[in-house]
Amino acid sequence: MSDDSILNGITKPSDLKKLSADELETLSEEIRVKILETVSENGGHLASNLGVVELTIAMHTVFNCPKDRFVWDVGHQSYAHKLLTGRLSEISTIRREGGLSGFPKRNESEYDAFDTGHSSTSVSAALGIAKAGEIIGEKYYTIAVIGDGALTGGLALEGINNAGQSKDNLIVILNDNKMSISKNVGSMARALTHMRIRPSYLNAKSRAHNTLDKLPGVGKPLSRFMSKSKDWIRLNFFGHQRNMFEQFGFNYYGPLDGHNIKELQTAMKAAKRTKGPVMLHVCTKKGKGYEYAEKNPKIFHGISAFDLETGEPKSSSKGYSDVFGEFMCSSAKSDKHICAITAAMAMGTGLSTFAKKYKSRFYDVGIAEEHAVTFACGLAAGNALPVFAVYSTFLQRAYDQILHDAALQQLHIVLAIDRAGIVGEDGETHQGVFDVAFLNTIPNVTIFCPSSFKELEDMLFRAVYNTREVAAVRYPRGGELYLPDDYEYRSELFSFYGDRESDILIVTYGRLFSHACKAKEALADKGISCCILKLNVIKPIMPTAAKSAMNFSHILFFEEGMRRGGAGEAFGLQLFDGGYRGSYTNVAIDGFVKQAKVDSALHHLGLDSEGMVNTVLSVLDEEKSTSEDKNDENTEQ
Amino acid sequence: MSDDSILNGITKPSDLKKLSADELETLSEEIRVKILETVSENGGHLASNLGVVELTIAMHTVFNCPKDRFVWDVGHQSYAHKLLTGRLSEISTIRREGGLSGFPKRNESEYDAFDTGHSSTSVSAALGIAKAGEIIGEKYYTIAVIGDGALTGGLALEGINNAGQSKDNLIVILNDNKMSISKNVGSMARALTHMRIRPSYLNAKSRAHNTLDKLPGVGKPLSRFMSKSKDWIRLNFFGHQRNMFEQFGFNYYGPLDGHNIKELQTAMKAAKRTKGPVMLHVCTKKGKGYEYAEKNPKIFHGISAFDLETGEPKSSSKGYSDVFGEFMCSSAKSDKHICAITAAMAMGTGLSTFAKKYKSRFYDVGIAEEHAVTFACGLAAGNALPVFAVYSTFLQRAYDQILHDAALQQLHIVLAIDRAGIVGEDGETHQGVFDVAFLNTIPNVTIFCPSSFKELEDMLFRAVYNTREVAAVRYPRGGELYLPDDYEYRSELFSFYGDRESDILIVTYGRLFSHACKAKEALADKGISCCILKLNVIKPIMPTAAKSAMNFSHILFFEEGMRRGGAGEAFGLQLFDGGYRGSYTNVAIDGFVKQAKVDSALHHLGLDSEGMVNTVLSVLDEEKSTSEDKNDENTEQ
Repeated sequence: MSDDSILNGITKPSDLKKLSADELETLSEEIRVKILETVSENGGHLASNLGVVELTIAMHTVFNCPKDRFVWDVGHQSYAHKLLTGRLSEISTIRREGGLSGFPKRNESEYDAFDTGHSSTSVSAALGIAKAGEIIGEKYYTIAVIGDGALTGGLALEGINNAGQSKDNLIVILNDNKMSISKNVGSMARALTHMRIRPSYLNAKSRAHNTLDKLPGVGKPLSRFMSKSKDWIRLNFFGHQRNMFEQFGFNYYGPLDGHNIKELQTAMKAAKRTKGPVMLHVCTKKGKGYEYAEKNPKIFHGISAFDLETGEPKSSSKGYSDVFGEFMCSSAKSDKHICAITAAMAMGTGLSTFAKKYKSRFYDVGIAEEHAVTFACGLAAGNALPVFAVYSTFLQRAYDQILHDAALQQLHIVLAIDRAGIVGEDGETHQGVFDVAFLNTIPNVTIFCPSSFKELEDMLFRAVYNTREVAAVRYPRGGELYLPDDYEYRSELFSFYGDRESDILIVTYGRLFSHACKAKEALADKGISCCILKLNVIKPIMPTAAKSAMNFSHILFFEEGMRRGGAGEAFGLQLFDGGYRGSYTNVAIDGFVKQAKVDSALHHLGLDSEGMVNTVLSVLDEEKSTSEDKNDENTEQ
Repeated sequence: MSDDSILNGITKPSDLKKLSADELETLSEEIRVKILETVSENGGHLASNLGVVELTIAMHTVFNCPKDRFVWDVGHQSYAHKLLTGRLSEISTIRREGGLSGFPKRNESEYDAFDTGHSSTSVSAALGIAKAGEIIGEKYYTIAVIGDGALTGGLALEGINNAGQSKDNLIVILNDNKMSISKNVGSMARALTHMRIRPSYLNAKSRAHNTLDKLPGVGKPLSRFMSKSKDWIRLNFFGHQRNMFEQFGFNYYGPLDGHNIKELQTAMKAAKRTKGPVMLHVCTKKGKGYEYAEKNPKIFHGISAFDLETGEPKSSSKGYSDVFGEFMCSSAKSDKHICAITAAMAMGTGLSTFAKKYKSRFYDVGIAEEHAVTFACGLAAGNALPVFAVYSTFLQRAYDQILHDAALQQLHIVLAIDRAGIVGEDGETHQGVFDVAFLNTIPNVTIFCPSSFKELEDMLFRAVYNTREVAAVRYPRGGELYLPDDYEYRSELFSFYGDRESDILIVTYGRLFSHACKAKEALADKGISCCILKLNVIKPIMPTAAKSAMNFSHILFFEEGMRRGGAGEAFGLQLFDGGYRGSYTNVAIDGFVKQAKVDSALHHLGLDSEGMVNTVLSVLDEEKSTSEDKNDENTEQ
């Protein structure tokens, strides 16, 4: 980008207000180019960001951020917002270690009013922020920007239901891009489609222009006119019907062309003057302006680095999700009771082929993890075999459903927990590090942890056919890591690998087993022999595993998950109960884990092979110094 | 009830089909009397059960249970269903230890299709059961019965959204009793009100009769007629508008008079013949037939034993909830930033007075715990001081919101966790025994545990004003228990009470401190001296507390909560890390806790004073026999 670009001249949102309509158009193109450059290099959310460029510009020209508060639902569409709020020079660091977050962060900028990451929080948060203004006695506008996918989440619907009767200056912008992450099959989606296909909307753009352009300039007159003409607009756009949002209590304006800055500005100004909650229904095109992304918005939703010219990813290889998808297809072929559920993540969880091949047994419930679990419970109560594929971080949403609907009723549902452990650049909100800890608090749950594709297949089979009640199989983002040739998996609950006569035992599970094997080899190079206890089932932890471990002088547990409530603590407690007198070192996660590449994050946490080696060495050092101290004492005596 | 009552002759639902319309009317009165007799004796949910008598009768005459599946949302309205499905003779045991559950239980009866307890699960579960029929190749109807309050829950809305496009034989009966537990302030409630106050509904009863009575008898002709006349009905009942449920994709019939069996039957038969999901909007009166309950449905929602003649409770005394309510009022008076949130539990949580006195700072968000927490986060982000009062068991719903929206953003919200610990007769679904374990997995959360009203006040103050990030204060159902005169609370994080020179240390917190004090006295009577470590903050557990404990030979932790992830494990791990060599006994909860009076449940769990004494004695016995063994060994040498 040239130094004299308009974007380079924007250091704060108020700079936008000096620009002409033409300049704003040019700016939107510059922002698109910047986003494309950045995401093709760093990976990230492309399609959603390209879709909201004009919307973001319009918001920053009509509202006064940071006095007015923007809450970006999910938040992965906030790149343009970041570019316009003083973060242009840092944008190349986005999603990189130590760099800008790919999501809004209050501690990154005063322009970010609320941190997001998980879907469907914006309406609730914005309503709270709006009410706080009342309480504190501060006047400002609060604007939630929420996609049509996020609107299927129960939290958003609770928020909409509660906000519908509010008298606050709450403005909800529904960013309707005609598709959530997967094809959204809820009735809300159908209702939106219904609105969009009405003849009145087919000419909406020109109609809106005709209607809105005739209105007098901004100000109270406009507001009064809008208010009076609301029925007229409704009549023209919707016939006699009150749409769903109006029935929820919102003042509704739309649908609006989300790529027409002037149209958006006019509607936003009207919204500012409207009493009570307002819903602006804005239609945008995901991937707008980048041909490959417009054509394949699913692929370009969240993406790794890719080639700008061809749209091809820079790297790709088979991952755990693919193996899961293959397992599901082959199981469904032989067993008519098998069915699959996803919460708007068919592609991410590897279920695309299943969705096509076994359409009648594939349920994409929208971004609705709680419903997904309770729905699975219903399927199980009716003797089907439901498998819910879900990212670890999103399963947090369904804690009570797993507990109250599945575990308590002892229903057999299978949770295929993808993206378990560190996920990398999405950072704190998306790490899959809580599932073990929260599932540990729930009775009647079994957790399997594969360390290879073969193990994943075997454990899925066991989860579906040889496990009662709730069976969870958790596996990481990405693919297989190194496994030594002489290691063999034999469907055991746990196994020892290495020298059982040594003093040192490394205990771990899942992906970290690969790191442990490397650590073992590195220690061997230093002349230190050790053994690995690989747990294949971490809930429950077999008492025999802990008992066998007690023969070792030093036990080190490495866990890519939260310490509190994790498997390492459960193992430690068994050692304590058994009267273990050796040293026990539990390396796990204590706080939220910031964005960084997976390897780097594991390294910082001391959970890669290097960290394991260092921990073993420091334990041995400590032993040495302790015994030297003892020797000194002995000498003194 | 006389032996020749109609009710006495009903051993299974199909018996109902032989009865005349008049006999069904008589039956409904007999059921009401039975419910009144039972609840006035055992306590339970009265108003909701009296409201659905005719509805339940109509369901059992039109559908074939257990082939057809009934899913009762929340499930506290299932008494009539129980009476009609072979459980009349056991009804006097309801909610008692070893007796019938106050909720549907699959393992209690084949007529109970799905266990419920927490709100808003029915549509999701029913949709799953309906889909399972497709998969298994079994034909049946699935009927969810959900109240207008439960419909504000995000899970229900997710279910409605997903079910709206289903082609299954799913029938949702909206039991609209014009009030959820508290006054429901969501826009959904307003929409329902709007439907109800339409002139067409004011004559709905006669209109429905006129309309439906003219239809030919049951069968395909009716179905065809209904289908054709749908538009006609809509025109008559709703003018040109499609209501919210139709926009969600449901076939809508209603509003219907929920106390007119014939009208209900006709509509249900029509629903059976309708393709795709059907919503029957049924208006009922909570407490119907019992004057006191009709007038005060809130009080008679869930109630302890009461006098049938006067409607007065048999016992009442000040509880923790009242103290919380008083604290909130006095704080709000002096601090304009204080605001209170409830999820439809204003009365239960003690906020009734606050709601009246500080109306603009009181938010009843409906049965929507997730929204409540994220809304609180918005309030906190806007510098207000939000306190969310919630029952422990319902807070399970908001796990991800506490983690992702509050703790991760380090927002200061206060969780006033009522009904913490064993709650008694509501049983497994309502025990408040998971909150400590699941909050333990989340960083940036502090948990206070008062053992008296005075401590509650002090800890609430500290939670609101002297704690950062998420501050939880948890307190039990009911009132204060025994505390010895020489015990004094001094706002410490922990304190020792008793003989610090003794061998035995009991560690506990909250309500169990009272039991521990009694146990200490009982042990003293036996000549055994012990000390109590009372934890006032259980997250984090102060390392100094564990360190001080290590001087004792025997440490016993008693916890009215789940073992896995609980405070007792956290304490044990600190002892283990510190190299503690004495005996550690952790008495806590391992599975789901069945219904029983609180004292009885605590007794069974070994958590009352008697249990504590017995555990101490058995630890001492074990020590004695171990040392004798050692002496024997010594002798042999």
